[in-house]
Amino acid sequence: MKKIQELLVNLEPSIAEIIAQPGSPRAVYEPISYILNLGGKRIRPAMVLASYKLYKADYSPEVLKLAQAVEMFHNFTLLHDDIMDNSQLRRGQETVHIKWDDATAILSGDLLQIEVYEKLAEIGNIEILKLFNAMARELCEGQMNDMQFEKREEVSSEEYLDMIRQKTAVLLGFSLQAGAILGGASKEDGEKLYNLGISIGLSFQLMDDYLDSFGETAKVGKRIGGDILERKKTYLWNKTWEKLNDHEKTALLGTYKLAEEDTIAIVKEKMQRTGAADETLKLVEDYSKEGIEILETMCSSKDISYLREIIELLASRES
Amino acid sequence: MKKIQELLVNLEPSIAEIIAQPGSPRAVYEPISYILNLGGKRIRPAMVLASYKLYKADYSPEVLKLAQAVEMFHNFTLLHDDIMDNSQLRRGQETVHIKWDDATAILSGDLLQIEVYEKLAEIGNIEILKLFNAMARELCEGQMNDMQFEKREEVSSEEYLDMIRQKTAVLLGFSLQAGAILGGASKEDGEKLYNLGISIGLSFQLMDDYLDSFGETAKVGKRIGGDILERKKTYLWNKTWEKLNDHEKTALLGTYKLAEEDTIAIVKEKMQRTGAADETLKLVEDYSKEGIEILETMCSSKDISYLREIIELLASRES
Repeated sequence: MKKIQELLVNLEPSIAEIIAQPGSPRAVYEPISYILNLGGKRIRPAMVLASYKLYKADYSPEVLKLAQAVEMFHNFTLLHDDIMDNSQLRRGQETVHIKWDDATAILSGDLLQIEVYEKLAEIGNIEILKLFNAMARELCEGQMNDMQFEKREEVSSEEYLDMIRQKTAVLLGFSLQAGAILGGASKEDGEKLYNLGISIGLSFQLMDDYLDSFGETAKVGKRIGGDILERKKTYLWNKTWEKLNDHEKTALLGTYKLAEEDTIAIVKEKMQRTGAADETLKLVEDYSKEGIEILETMCSSKDISYLREIIELLASRES
Repeated sequence: MKKIQELLVNLEPSIAEIIAQPGSPRAVYEPISYILNLGGKRIRPAMVLASYKLYKADYSPEVLKLAQAVEMFHNFTLLHDDIMDNSQLRRGQETVHIKWDDATAILSGDLLQIEVYEKLAEIGNIEILKLFNAMARELCEGQMNDMQFEKREEVSSEEYLDMIRQKTAVLLGFSLQAGAILGGASKEDGEKLYNLGISIGLSFQLMDDYLDSFGETAKVGKRIGGDILERKKTYLWNKTWEKLNDHEKTALLGTYKLAEEDTIAIVKEKMQRTGAADETLKLVEDYSKEGIEILETMCSSKDISYLREIIELLASRES
């Protein structure tokens, strides 16, 4: 993991700078520092740098601003999503709307979003600005689809995969494409890297879903089985469901009358016994491989080691 | 009012276009159409065109996009402010978070904000993008100050005026400055027009505050006396308060035990008897005159008639 650490070390001053948030009134700036300070894997800014590294050896001020912008934007979505989903905890700490209140979380989020556009304006590249806007629009559409799906009895795997593409993958696609553009990539390379980001994003979210049921609380940083209790129609759930006969389906729904831990244990057992858990991991692998294949079709003279390491790390992570 | 009607007629297709909002899923687009369709005076886009008209006779596609952007941004702030302030009605209709729910209002607002930046990206002027960002940041700070002031016992008139400058005036300043820049204005003219917008904005908000107590429900479109019941520390309230002796202050606070309509009537009487109501109207006039003076210092060959009419209309309005 030496390559990723190198990227993260280069990112550190940029992240520290955005955590500082010196504005006034403090009440609207403190929650921004707070959420950025909760940590996280900083995958998106690392992807910006890894993609840029395919074209240039040293980091320009613009690419560091872009790395800041994607991390800030990601945290903006967390701030608002946590209100919409009424999430209490984020990385083991209180979410902003719980620690403060809804109004503060809304307004700090709005300000953080404006700060993202300040970074984009400083970069001064209209093409990147337009790509960013298109991505952000899709992300909002994905969040609404996610909320709408919760009210529906059935959601097909196809619909689910398209929703996670919008909600998670497009930001990874943008991070790679925009990083490459700043590095001087051709239009064709930029589009390839966007598609690579989509593959990694799908792999990433499917792994997240898998870990929500099969991870370890200590590593994942949240209660295991949340999706199961909410009966979230993830790919994992859908694959389990479609392999059960009517009798088994009724029995599975019946377990929701039991104590929560028993429900979780029984559903997990079904997920494994039907092969749905393995199928999900297989799809994580497939998308990940698809990403690496795209990478390998790109000019062989490029240093793809940074991106390759990120892709492999994401597909094998436990948290 | 012929000039303003001419501006509004030119705006109509642009406003109709943004109301149409054809995207999917409908659940995130419908609330955007809904709030834009509630109407309003369309002052901000009219100011963009009036300012542009100082420099060019015909409207460019860019200036029409800018007019759209400021109206969309204004509606974005309404969408989120109505959640934060828990407002039930807007222009006599249910607010978005009441008609739908908080999550929908947050997400539709976020999407509308992104659409604003899409317009700005299409205009493609980085200077305008930076001015917009600086304005939007101040507006968020102003909204937080407004919320913080509600928790305080005392807010000075100076603090109040600075808050309404941030919350209301900077957007008017930006509308004039950016419209002028697209028309080809000099840097100096742009800055003058920004200051003119600040003066109009202060005049505008002070008039709003006056009408909140002394307007007519049918014209203003909301219950009269809301600020009085919330004991909002407006300029009007502060000027009343500072003219009372300790005995009168205690008596005034005592009226809050009475029925709401009685409280409103007594406080209004105090606002008039102390001269605070007239002082507020005087300040509305003063800022308005300041605006016209700035306008008159600008090149005499320019057609200032559009802007002058807007300023005069705003200072004499009843709604």
